[in-house]
Amino acid sequence: MSHPFDQAVALHPLGEHRYGGATSAAYANMVGPFGGVTAAAALQGVLDHPARLGDPVSLTVNFCAALNDGAYELTARPVRTNRSTQHWVLEIVQGGETVLTGTALTAVRRDTWGAQDDPAPRVLSPNALGKPNMAAPVEWVRRYDIRITDGAIPRVWDGAGEHSRTTLWVRDEPPRALDFASLAALCDVFFPRVWLRRATRVPAGTVSMTSYFHVGQAELAAVGEGWLVGRAESSVMRNGYFDQRGQLWSQAGALLATTHQVVYYKE
Amino acid sequence: MSHPFDQAVALHPLGEHRYGGATSAAYANMVGPFGGVTAAAALQGVLDHPARLGDPVSLTVNFCAALNDGAYELTARPVRTNRSTQHWVLEIVQGGETVLTGTALTAVRRDTWGAQDDPAPRVLSPNALGKPNMAAPVEWVRRYDIRITDGAIPRVWDGAGEHSRTTLWVRDEPPRALDFASLAALCDVFFPRVWLRRATRVPAGTVSMTSYFHVGQAELAAVGEGWLVGRAESSVMRNGYFDQRGQLWSQAGALLATTHQVVYYKE
Repeated sequence: MSHPFDQAVALHPLGEHRYGGATSAAYANMVGPFGGVTAAAALQGVLDHPARLGDPVSLTVNFCAALNDGAYELTARPVRTNRSTQHWVLEIVQGGETVLTGTALTAVRRDTWGAQDDPAPRVLSPNALGKPNMAAPVEWVRRYDIRITDGAIPRVWDGAGEHSRTTLWVRDEPPRALDFASLAALCDVFFPRVWLRRATRVPAGTVSMTSYFHVGQAELAAVGEGWLVGRAESSVMRNGYFDQRGQLWSQAGALLATTHQVVYYKE
Repeated sequence: MSHPFDQAVALHPLGEHRYGGATSAAYANMVGPFGGVTAAAALQGVLDHPARLGDPVSLTVNFCAALNDGAYELTARPVRTNRSTQHWVLEIVQGGETVLTGTALTAVRRDTWGAQDDPAPRVLSPNALGKPNMAAPVEWVRRYDIRITDGAIPRVWDGAGEHSRTTLWVRDEPPRALDFASLAALCDVFFPRVWLRRATRVPAGTVSMTSYFHVGQAELAAVGEGWLVGRAESSVMRNGYFDQRGQLWSQAGALLATTHQVVYYKE
């Protein structure tokens, strides 16, 4: 039996740069599938492509419309290949309509000088927290073991929110060895910041998400089925949209990804 | 005489979704033009488009190759128009080769609850700082009045850098009323964080940049020719790439844009 995540991002080739995929009931969201898995499937088209050069460095996806349950067609087309970098244009179509656009960069990375200035948050370990503590009003949340250390979804929607920062541990449930596709999905694991900031549950949905990957295949493999610690917060919420920035570290403290999204909210 | 910025982002229609533009010597960078102006020109194609719905909310551009001096062709194609949002796919081609890919989101924004949690940095005013203080090794820097309050380009390249944070005032030089195109360009005004962090001048270039705009046309018009205060820093530099996140506020303290890029560096 393959992992539900592998089933959710599985693609079959339909021709040059074209793949068929399908939404997975295991990752259902309020409307359509969890956006993180859709982003991961788009990246999977790059990862599966026979002409790919290097590992993912950057991924942007725009959610143009909620996906319908069922089949979709993905295009992942390399539009420019340089000596060590390659640029990709992504699109998902359902019933002749564009439901996702995106771009990606892959690159052959070389050893260089380096510095990580943002350390992992110092928080209680996942074992000390004991068990998953994020309410699962939608199916996809059950596909992760999420242990929030601070900034949980409010228990009382009393409009008394004060900040937008959440820190949490997360890994696939059941555990699964980390790869670029699952890391891309994990970048979207933070619930909408407006719920926390406002302590009011308003409709909200990501419209555009960009993730940068700061490690290569070998460093991801070293994480294996281990925990990631993540932190997300927002700078500003105004006139229907807010930003949400996040970071994901390995339990050993390596910053694996930085991610940003702009999210629509109502009222 | 129009402002050099208007000349630099001027487009002429070539057909449906297609525009002609040209690089501007006034905004020349080390190799090719200042990326901020190229991003702005790509957005200008959206702004000029007769089918545009709403104001820019999100813009992602990928620099696939340095532009050559001279003419280019821009495609700005609306691929999905919803009730209040519109998704765009962008491409710049020179000599039959893709040199830029991108996506954008425009939206009709409505009055909602809001909160700005990141205040503008409290720093000396631009008048107190007195005059531009950023070295201008390349032409485009002369098109801005940049007054760095902390985190200047190192005067001595001694490898003794400690952090990557720069705070600065900036406006167009000569002054020009702020609009979405100039704000998109200003998002790229921060010099590569690796120079500061490392106090070593290595080749570096933006490969992908995403900017979110948090205000509408009226709030931009209210800024007029006023100063913006900006801050940028990096989380991690590793194996040839680093992230760079930035924020731009009006002098009155409104957060106008949040921006992120991933930057290539050598050695």
